[in-house]
Amino acid sequence: MFSTTVSPRFYETDAFGHINNIVVAGWFETGREDIFRVFTPDLDPKKLPLILARIEVDFVAQIYYGCKVEIRTQLEKLGNSSFVVIQEAWQKGALAARGRAVQVYFNHATQTSEPLPDEYREVLSQHVAKAD
Amino acid sequence: MFSTTVSPRFYETDAFGHINNIVVAGWFETGREDIFRVFTPDLDPKKLPLILARIEVDFVAQIYYGCKVEIRTQLEKLGNSSFVVIQEAWQKGALAARGRAVQVYFNHATQTSEPLPDEYREVLSQHVAKAD
Amino acid sequence: MFSTTVSPRFYETDAFGHINNIVVAGWFETGREDIFRVFTPDLDPKKLPLILARIEVDFVAQIYYGCKVEIRTQLEKLGNSSFVVIQEAWQKGALAARGRAVQVYFNHATQTSEPLPDEYREVLSQHVAKAD
Amino acid sequence: MFSTTVSPRFYETDAFGHINNIVVAGWFETGREDIFRVFTPDLDPKKLPLILARIEVDFVAQIYYGCKVEIRTQLEKLGNSSFVVIQEAWQKGALAARGRAVQVYFNHATQTSEPLPDEYREVLSQHVAKAD
Repeated sequence: MFSTTVSPRFYETDAFGHINNIVVAGWFETGREDIFRVFTPDLDPKKLPLILARIEVDFVAQIYYGCKVEIRTQLEKLGNSSFVVIQEAWQKGALAARGRAVQVYFNHATQTSEPLPDEYREVLSQHVAKAD
Repeated sequence: MFSTTVSPRFYETDAFGHINNIVVAGWFETGREDIFRVFTPDLDPKKLPLILARIEVDFVAQIYYGCKVEIRTQLEKLGNSSFVVIQEAWQKGALAARGRAVQVYFNHATQTSEPLPDEYREVLSQHVAKAD
Repeated sequence: MFSTTVSPRFYETDAFGHINNIVVAGWFETGREDIFRVFTPDLDPKKLPLILARIEVDFVAQIYYGCKVEIRTQLEKLGNSSFVVIQEAWQKGALAARGRAVQVYFNHATQTSEPLPDEYREVLSQHVAKAD
Repeated sequence: MFSTTVSPRFYETDAFGHINNIVVAGWFETGREDIFRVFTPDLDPKKLPLILARIEVDFVAQIYYGCKVEIRTQLEKLGNSSFVVIQEAWQKGALAARGRAVQVYFNHATQTSEPLPDEYREVLSQHVAKAD
């Protein structure tokens, strides 16, 4: 499991007094950076061979300004040219949000998806979540 | 169907040269404003009795800076205390993203969901998408 | 004078119940799009020969969700390779924020600033604010 | 001097391939959190007695995705009811941006500024930058 910690920022709150929901989708993108690094260790955007096909976020509890949030990231399954990421946001020991993202292995030059090469598949497979 | 037009902003692009995916989740929030106004015509955040329980976004095509985007918003179904919103983003005559959002009728004072009052249910029911 | 209208978005509010200050800096970037179009009519980011050297924003009054904001943009002066933009945000007939931005004519290929070509200088000079 | 580290996020890049300038203004807000904590240790937004009157940012060098940024924050001077914050963003050992912010001690209930109480003035005075 990959783990990233984010500190909520004041401008990420909204008029309800908590962190705005959309911000959490952005934090989950940030949580996927550990996966981006599997493909592009220096995170040079020009070399990152991934696009995002779909996101889902379930908002479980309010997230507060002033207290760190842990983003946990695992893989759910690996497909031929895509893979599914599952994520959770935890604050003060409680689950606050759950997410799922479908990333596609993508050739930006030809603008087409391609089969996930074995070298990446092997690394990613080590991060697939165990069935409960 | 509700329709809102947004002009992509330069800071909404990312290093891939297009609009960042997460931004689209924010635009869909903006598209739901017409639904917020059903409950709170002046959009005073202190009076808005809704929270967001879930979002889904499918990214269908790249969205470009320099060209307007239409956000189309309808209701999919009305539940007891929640309702499901379906949304689309269109640019240059093509579908670019599809979204779904679950909004809950919520009492911020008691911090609990409540059954959707009939006065709102009636208005919302006029915006439920026809089955194809 | 260039004029652009923005509708505040819910995720742009913060826990004080109004629009977050930093958002206004982003709206001013959006207001400068009319100037970007002088250089790059189709707004293709790869061709936009400008970088931002400095911004200033004075926050005059709170900006509310639920009511449109007009961004007014003029030029203050033209330098050799840069120019100064002055901007205002108006809501409900009152000035809410004032901004200044220094943009530099920039060659992204050589990563250096260059003298502002006459063809652009002429167009821009028509938008320099008159002294009061 | 206060110091905060931020990791640039992918959605904070723009089509020029670097971190968008406006984002830096947001990071500087985040850098001022250590000052917010002087007034409101738990960062409860409802109790934070500050508003922002002005910001300035000078963009000195491009900021890259994939490499941490240190935000350094000091006070420049203390006024009667306001104070001036000076900030710097450093990446890879080089200064990337400089900022200045004017914060006002503010009573949200009466919506007026008030003289800075001595208890806060004393703490803040320990963080005023020494003249070079």
